[in-house]
Amino acid sequence: MYANLVTPSVLVDLDVAEANIVRYQSYCDGHNLTLRPHIKTHKLPLLAKAQLDAGAVGITCQKISEAEAMISQGGIEDVFITYNIMGDDKLNCLRSLSQKVRLSVVADSEMVINGLAEAFADAQTPLAVLVECDTGARRCGVQQPEQAMALAVRIDAASGLKFGGLMTYPPAGATDAVQSWLSRAKALIEAGGIAVPVVSGGGSPDMWNAHLVPVVTEYRVGTYIYNDRSLVARGTCSLDDCALSVLATIVSMPTVNRAIIDAGSKVLTSDLLGFEDFGAVLGHPDIRIDQLSEEHGRMVSEQPLDLRVGDRVRIVPNHACVVSNMLDHVQLIRGSQLVAQSPVLARGKVW
Amino acid sequence: MYANLVTPSVLVDLDVAEANIVRYQSYCDGHNLTLRPHIKTHKLPLLAKAQLDAGAVGITCQKISEAEAMISQGGIEDVFITYNIMGDDKLNCLRSLSQKVRLSVVADSEMVINGLAEAFADAQTPLAVLVECDTGARRCGVQQPEQAMALAVRIDAASGLKFGGLMTYPPAGATDAVQSWLSRAKALIEAGGIAVPVVSGGGSPDMWNAHLVPVVTEYRVGTYIYNDRSLVARGTCSLDDCALSVLATIVSMPTVNRAIIDAGSKVLTSDLLGFEDFGAVLGHPDIRIDQLSEEHGRMVSEQPLDLRVGDRVRIVPNHACVVSNMLDHVQLIRGSQLVAQSPVLARGKVW
Repeated sequence: MYANLVTPSVLVDLDVAEANIVRYQSYCDGHNLTLRPHIKTHKLPLLAKAQLDAGAVGITCQKISEAEAMISQGGIEDVFITYNIMGDDKLNCLRSLSQKVRLSVVADSEMVINGLAEAFADAQTPLAVLVECDTGARRCGVQQPEQAMALAVRIDAASGLKFGGLMTYPPAGATDAVQSWLSRAKALIEAGGIAVPVVSGGGSPDMWNAHLVPVVTEYRVGTYIYNDRSLVARGTCSLDDCALSVLATIVSMPTVNRAIIDAGSKVLTSDLLGFEDFGAVLGHPDIRIDQLSEEHGRMVSEQPLDLRVGDRVRIVPNHACVVSNMLDHVQLIRGSQLVAQSPVLARGKVW
Repeated sequence: MYANLVTPSVLVDLDVAEANIVRYQSYCDGHNLTLRPHIKTHKLPLLAKAQLDAGAVGITCQKISEAEAMISQGGIEDVFITYNIMGDDKLNCLRSLSQKVRLSVVADSEMVINGLAEAFADAQTPLAVLVECDTGARRCGVQQPEQAMALAVRIDAASGLKFGGLMTYPPAGATDAVQSWLSRAKALIEAGGIAVPVVSGGGSPDMWNAHLVPVVTEYRVGTYIYNDRSLVARGTCSLDDCALSVLATIVSMPTVNRAIIDAGSKVLTSDLLGFEDFGAVLGHPDIRIDQLSEEHGRMVSEQPLDLRVGDRVRIVPNHACVVSNMLDHVQLIRGSQLVAQSPVLARGKVW
């Protein structure tokens, strides 16, 4: 299996990824939703371009350094950074990026808006700022539609900024509550004479129910391009739709029921996402990866393992996005063919 | 706090790290143990040299690419790779490294020994191979002292190899069982006329009890140089002995009891190590980091938080070693002074 590859390696099947891109773009097209993929899952300009070519309106990044890396190779013209950008270094960088691409950001406090307004006070093109709304996920975001309205007014009044709309990272499975929250905020803002050009929702778990929140005009989704074990468990996709896997070698077989692989938390990560083990071993449904240390993964089964030291296995991780962040390179494949090695250009971009 | 640093940043206090190095070296010196630090915790040649200067006999690496990175800057002459090295690429690399430094590795199966023997068949200096023993941690290693003896005989008979001794990564808190296992294996091997030059134990949780396993001649320990929240919880060190911390900025205060920081699992990692939250916020014992997504950390308290958007906090992570692996650079500090930025040279070396 990919005999020329040294293990552990992260494999990305382009055939599967491309099919995932097309399938979800079709869904969005069919429901009049614009699609703005989050590139955190792949961190590869190559795949961002494939998403844009298929019809995506632009990309989503979480951090400014991630956006910077993604646009460094050209071809990406519209970036939404769904993060409160603060501090002189980051604001200067934002200002500089805004001269290269169409840029939008979020804010959920006066403090963040003030920083953006100061940095863009004399900007030729105003920066689009969406208000982040906490519709139940209890992360960032204003708590009440009235607060969203107040911030929209503040953005609208700042000379270098323009109000770009509403953004939420919604809780899974709460479509009615999200619809109600965002509709009310939108109505309040419009009643004040301010247009709401975009209402941006997102999240892979609910991706096939995006149309059940009709106030949303644009959907952000990251994991859909690779999928992973967590989305298989939720019924969002099948194991065959998972484009990212980890190739590992069995380095030790201490007992008939235990095999140790050369991929640990430095590849698979400790993300559980509700599971009690660390990935699905393809072709071996009886095996559980019950323990990771940094460089070892422990595979156990109640049955004797039909494996030998030197054998290779492929693992679909619990969470694909975080695995993309662990290695400097991924191996691009199409089925059993190795196509190329690609640097993960936006890996490790945390600021 | 370190006003010039962009957040999130990983801070390493050299004063604290140096004190940790000296303290444990003194313990080992006092108990006639040679100390062989595992560099996985810091991945920095600078600190490996400090460990060697203090009296360490050499360093431990887990993977061959990690060893390669560590010796690339010179000054490191003795490396023990505590991993089953397999496959042509890695064996060729091992052979090449063995011409630059004094090298030893482990094996726990005939298969691994055969590969090593073939790669070193015509080597001028034989490769030292220690037999890895599973003394209860249930990861790699032979299961019975008799198996250790059989592999020692096999290594001893291979022309390019020499038997280097026994190695274990022991379970925490099982000193008597470990002593009994290793003593028996050592006696069996010696009874067969083969010397056992080194018995290598290790593990930070039991580091102050290393002398309670008198058969052990050499101790491998990684986390002790930085320490972390998990070792504070075990009573191995105090919070003041923790050299590594994460500097983060509060980017959102959605409610009086909730603050969001700009460090998520891409910095702090999802390693729990028995905790239910993701790090100790220095100076704020009431705060729990109860949730991480990739770029956000959620801090909650039952009391109103005395914090504002823009404030900075320092976090001692649950597990220091894995945090070292997340960013390309760490910030070296001494107390409140920023000393330098250092690349994490052996970051992401998984093969």
